[in-house]
Amino acid sequence: MKEILREQLNHVRKNRPLIHNITNYVTVNDCANILLACGASPIMSDDINEVEDITSICGGLNINMGTLNQNTVPAMLLAGKKANELGHPVILDPVGVGASKYRNEVASQLLKEVKFTVIRGNISEIKQLALGSGTSRGVDADVADTVTDQTLDQTITFAKAFAKETGAVIAITGAIDIVTSKEQAYVIYNGNPMMSQITGTGCMLSAMTGAYITANSSTPLEATIASLCAMGLCGEKAFNRLTKQDGNATYRNYIIDEIFHLTGESLEEGAKYEMR
Amino acid sequence: MKEILREQLNHVRKNRPLIHNITNYVTVNDCANILLACGASPIMSDDINEVEDITSICGGLNINMGTLNQNTVPAMLLAGKKANELGHPVILDPVGVGASKYRNEVASQLLKEVKFTVIRGNISEIKQLALGSGTSRGVDADVADTVTDQTLDQTITFAKAFAKETGAVIAITGAIDIVTSKEQAYVIYNGNPMMSQITGTGCMLSAMTGAYITANSSTPLEATIASLCAMGLCGEKAFNRLTKQDGNATYRNYIIDEIFHLTGESLEEGAKYEMR
Amino acid sequence: MKEILREQLNHVRKNRPLIHNITNYVTVNDCANILLACGASPIMSDDINEVEDITSICGGLNINMGTLNQNTVPAMLLAGKKANELGHPVILDPVGVGASKYRNEVASQLLKEVKFTVIRGNISEIKQLALGSGTSRGVDADVADTVTDQTLDQTITFAKAFAKETGAVIAITGAIDIVTSKEQAYVIYNGNPMMSQITGTGCMLSAMTGAYITANSSTPLEATIASLCAMGLCGEKAFNRLTKQDGNATYRNYIIDEIFHLTGESLEEGAKYEMR
Repeated sequence: MKEILREQLNHVRKNRPLIHNITNYVTVNDCANILLACGASPIMSDDINEVEDITSICGGLNINMGTLNQNTVPAMLLAGKKANELGHPVILDPVGVGASKYRNEVASQLLKEVKFTVIRGNISEIKQLALGSGTSRGVDADVADTVTDQTLDQTITFAKAFAKETGAVIAITGAIDIVTSKEQAYVIYNGNPMMSQITGTGCMLSAMTGAYITANSSTPLEATIASLCAMGLCGEKAFNRLTKQDGNATYRNYIIDEIFHLTGESLEEGAKYEMR
Repeated sequence: MKEILREQLNHVRKNRPLIHNITNYVTVNDCANILLACGASPIMSDDINEVEDITSICGGLNINMGTLNQNTVPAMLLAGKKANELGHPVILDPVGVGASKYRNEVASQLLKEVKFTVIRGNISEIKQLALGSGTSRGVDADVADTVTDQTLDQTITFAKAFAKETGAVIAITGAIDIVTSKEQAYVIYNGNPMMSQITGTGCMLSAMTGAYITANSSTPLEATIASLCAMGLCGEKAFNRLTKQDGNATYRNYIIDEIFHLTGESLEEGAKYEMR
Repeated sequence: MKEILREQLNHVRKNRPLIHNITNYVTVNDCANILLACGASPIMSDDINEVEDITSICGGLNINMGTLNQNTVPAMLLAGKKANELGHPVILDPVGVGASKYRNEVASQLLKEVKFTVIRGNISEIKQLALGSGTSRGVDADVADTVTDQTLDQTITFAKAFAKETGAVIAITGAIDIVTSKEQAYVIYNGNPMMSQITGTGCMLSAMTGAYITANSSTPLEATIASLCAMGLCGEKAFNRLTKQDGNATYRNYIIDEIFHLTGESLEEGAKYEMR
């Protein structure tokens, strides 16, 4: 399997997929830079007059609900449907779903009208999407929802059911990451707690996963695992570079820098995951 | 008093307040990262369909007029009123007021319809708000308005009157910072001139002050002083880290990094201010 | 000529021009910071209610089509016409033109209704503007369009014709940069290939060029050459600072840092260009 992760990364660097991002204005620059760092090319566009054209010239689509806006929602739907029509991979990052009624409604509509290849969020967001419950603390997962060794099996069962329902690979990220199809489940142990002290690690991960599933369109499960291992591993490597004076701003830069230099071999060596 | 500053900081780290930001798209990422750095959590949301929900799950609200937009103004008003209703602290950063008639009108409306806990701006912005005059050089204070030793007492008198009129703590920042309630005035000497060569130091300061007044809701004056001293002190510390080759981009990162590591003890030791 | 470049830079540092930017939300923070780094002041504003006021208090205008939006297009037109009326220099960065029908239409309208002092883009974007053709790979130039030693003369001829048609200085940037008026042509060899792995080097260059042509309003050709040489040279200098672990995030910061420290003497010494 580890060799498979290496291949996923190498395909991104080789194919240089062009990714259409409809995303929030908070972390958009980091999303663009991490896409370039991993070997892909970003284009950000969210106007209804052009999203179908833009999606058509791209290989994949990343929809991120971060700073959700009524002007952008129709663009998300148009682009999502167009990408489906063209057979392009589409990833959904339901940022902050559960934090407002409006986000819940938009998320429901997106799930109804667009077929997603991957859905990636924290445990609270995914619970909200799947069950209409899940407590939420703004854009962060609620402590009550934290995945622990005790709740891991239960969470996997729930994620597989949601994968079956949506036809998407489900990626639940946090201290422990879970990736499931309707049948298979993987648990990933890469990462560092300080990653949660940077804004946008989740958004960056979703953008990069968009590139991975586009460059590896026949293996979305493996591509998602590879992207999550890559992000977590680079979070570890970047943390090791920090001096005593470096804080979250430098850490953000170093994570992107590590993604820039990550090789398939290094990913293969550093990935920590298991099948469950 | 210095121990009081330490307490303000410690309360932020302990309470981890969730801050709702309606802010500009220029410096929004830095605002999110500095909120995380100081121990708070950011959420950015500006759509009228959800701002009331978002404000309701947060502890405080930060309204920043940076890239003022007619779609966002109604959201600022809705969120501001909701926060008032819930008794949440609200901070206003009237970026660039005086630079256009539109900004002046929106600022007037905000002051009329929303009760602010703190209003923070440069001297030109605060003069414009309070007096309808004050010259402006875009988003920077005009040289003609600069607070000097000669004009300090006069500026304090004016700020106290504006504090009385609005019921808010008034924070005027620049080479010398002034913080007043209607009765008390403090002058802060922390900071470094190079901070004005980075975009967003003002915005970051307002966002962080939003966290300080939320975690210390019964002491808005002291919380504001603590936040201003913290920012200025970290500007000094970050400046000391700079090598000869480092410029404003690295300086920005180092300031956030210093906020990330700032302790109550360090703030207590480094704060330079006096009561006037 | 080299002394002329030095003067262009010195005028920016001395005059500190205030630049009005209507630009995309992806790279806007970097644009603001590079304007500060080069000695100018940025203001970002895109609402139709205020763009005329804002342009009036500024010295120059930078229109960037990055995340093109139907709400912002009327603001671009209003601001552009106002700047023309006031005799302010205006620069157009037609980001991604060719990638959608909508971008092509908006670009045409801008060219028809606003007189630009400089138009800066990659070869695919400029071909699209001038000829309505030019292949496009999202926001990057297409390989098929790459300027080589073989196609250089032909590209210069085409750029001169477009300069004549529009009355603007035409700047085509890539591995080799070309700057032409209707009569003169210069080729610039500064830069580093890794600059294309950062999002926003083009946007930053356009913003900075806006400052250069504003501080040197009687010499737009020379000002544009100076800005392009400065950017390329700082790309070289920043690249030399990179350690083995530094990637594109650190590189971005270092480029801005180098612009911050660049002197007229250093620009004079490092500029690599020739008249053709």
